[in-house]
Amino acid sequence: MPELRRDPINGRWVVININNPKGPGEYEVDPQTKKGGNCAFCSGNEKMTPPEIMAFSKGKRDANSPGWSIRVIPNKFPAMQIEGSLDKMGVGIFDMMNGVGAHEVIVETTVHDKDIADRDESEVRDLIWAYRERSLDLRRDKRFKYILIFKNYGASAGASLEHPHSQLIALPFVPKRVTGEMEGAEKYFDYRERCIFCDIIRQEVQDKELTIIDSGRFLSFSPFASRFPYEACIIPKDHASDFGQIQQQDVSELASVLRNTLLKTKKLLKDPSYNFIIHSAPLDDLNRDDYHWHIEIMPRLTRVAGFEWGTGFYINPTPPELAAKTLREVKL
Amino acid sequence: MPELRRDPINGRWVVININNPKGPGEYEVDPQTKKGGNCAFCSGNEKMTPPEIMAFSKGKRDANSPGWSIRVIPNKFPAMQIEGSLDKMGVGIFDMMNGVGAHEVIVETTVHDKDIADRDESEVRDLIWAYRERSLDLRRDKRFKYILIFKNYGASAGASLEHPHSQLIALPFVPKRVTGEMEGAEKYFDYRERCIFCDIIRQEVQDKELTIIDSGRFLSFSPFASRFPYEACIIPKDHASDFGQIQQQDVSELASVLRNTLLKTKKLLKDPSYNFIIHSAPLDDLNRDDYHWHIEIMPRLTRVAGFEWGTGFYINPTPPELAAKTLREVKL
Repeated sequence: MPELRRDPINGRWVVININNPKGPGEYEVDPQTKKGGNCAFCSGNEKMTPPEIMAFSKGKRDANSPGWSIRVIPNKFPAMQIEGSLDKMGVGIFDMMNGVGAHEVIVETTVHDKDIADRDESEVRDLIWAYRERSLDLRRDKRFKYILIFKNYGASAGASLEHPHSQLIALPFVPKRVTGEMEGAEKYFDYRERCIFCDIIRQEVQDKELTIIDSGRFLSFSPFASRFPYEACIIPKDHASDFGQIQQQDVSELASVLRNTLLKTKKLLKDPSYNFIIHSAPLDDLNRDDYHWHIEIMPRLTRVAGFEWGTGFYINPTPPELAAKTLREVKL
Repeated sequence: MPELRRDPINGRWVVININNPKGPGEYEVDPQTKKGGNCAFCSGNEKMTPPEIMAFSKGKRDANSPGWSIRVIPNKFPAMQIEGSLDKMGVGIFDMMNGVGAHEVIVETTVHDKDIADRDESEVRDLIWAYRERSLDLRRDKRFKYILIFKNYGASAGASLEHPHSQLIALPFVPKRVTGEMEGAEKYFDYRERCIFCDIIRQEVQDKELTIIDSGRFLSFSPFASRFPYEACIIPKDHASDFGQIQQQDVSELASVLRNTLLKTKKLLKDPSYNFIIHSAPLDDLNRDDYHWHIEIMPRLTRVAGFEWGTGFYINPTPPELAAKTLREVKL
């Protein structure tokens, strides 16, 4: 009989197929196409993008010229617009506001086909540092309530450009899935006076069944009620609700855990498309006892069908314990 | 500047691109492939499926033989299993239960490539009647808390079989997105003592800007905060929380509105894949003053990217007023 598991944080139920579990070889993965060609994110083509917001480089360099290692630019087709004051209004029964926000692209490397899994730790460390820098800069703007940092890799994950890039969106509201997580975490805290994420970490450090990588200060694991096969979560073991306050010494360790989780996923599942997203506390309440920042990694192996959209109820053909075990055992 | 709209029921914010709206011709639609061949749902192949649960036919007919017009069978690869008692248990901090439920397939017609848009009203009326019959039968089983009725059309919508079919899943819990809707509707009711869906209908009957079809007793419209381009919602204008209690005279009218909405969508958008799902009240609280059953129709025109998964925050390139207007104007 299939197993129903409830996500302890947001209350979502997931069906786990435990009788006839689907192993890593049984998913069809669209091959990654890397055509290259006239790419605006490649070094030498800096003039093809809007003027840069920030860049990392060794030594001196003019803005919008080669010599960078990581480059942050405004999104050419932004979902949100940075200029203007935030106006809220009602239209009959409905609420709306204008789309004031920021939408930035973080070009992660000059190399067109070198994804995170293929980079060395120091390159990934700089990327995380860039996330942190942009997050700290944008939060000074009091119109914003939330900063989303995410990455789409591969066409099946919604990436429209091949060159490795992440995105950052600053929003004038806290998005739905984050408020849902916070409400669940708050309820748990009210009852037990403990952070639910800390309790999950504590239990997993004992059980070890869902662990992919335990680096000491970070845990990479398969969530108990994973919606997607081979989904992973990376979380700091010590309580911290705000990603932006991550310390320099932790960034290296996080870089290694993120890279190795993605490399294991790439090796095991034949370079699947994936999405990841950083969940952190909202900007007007950064230091919360009941919330814990984390990174959610979702390989794209199944096509999400209609009832999953309409219900928020998922079927996962690969038990998380099996996913964790096979990922744990992948040699790097 | 883009516009942010809040769904009044579940509180979800959506970005609507109003400056540079995307029209119907600007979406790339994967063509529908209908190969036919050795199809288990075609007439004459009844032995290829598990034994039928129910069928509609004119005149006498043996079970599992030709002569039917609609046929309901158990899903060959069910997400849930019908036998067994419902056991709930805790595993440390986690909750689980066994997957007791039902998973049925409603074969909608004997014709392999005749989707709802291509049928006449009486055929669609029978389909809705079959949904109702199965819903009334399954709700007698007290282990179940919710019945999902949904349809995936086309490979991009997750349909793994070409032959027109819908699905029904009976669940031992109320799925997340429905509880979210109910919580929002309940809050509104607590404050105003009115059903929020009824208020939305009342406003739309006056404004008419979002209307696709107003048939008198049913409204087909583009939701104010549509997540997806050309998304539609069909709702009875009189208050009713339970789809299963729909009356025979209303079924014909609903059939006409559903068929015509899908036919308009098919004509306007070149036969896109789509999902629809019926949202109705949970089985242990069928007659609610604050909830209103409805059908959500989601054409698959955009690929949902990572941050939409991770956040529940959507970008819709086509303003709902434009979607409604162009759909309204499609001649049938």
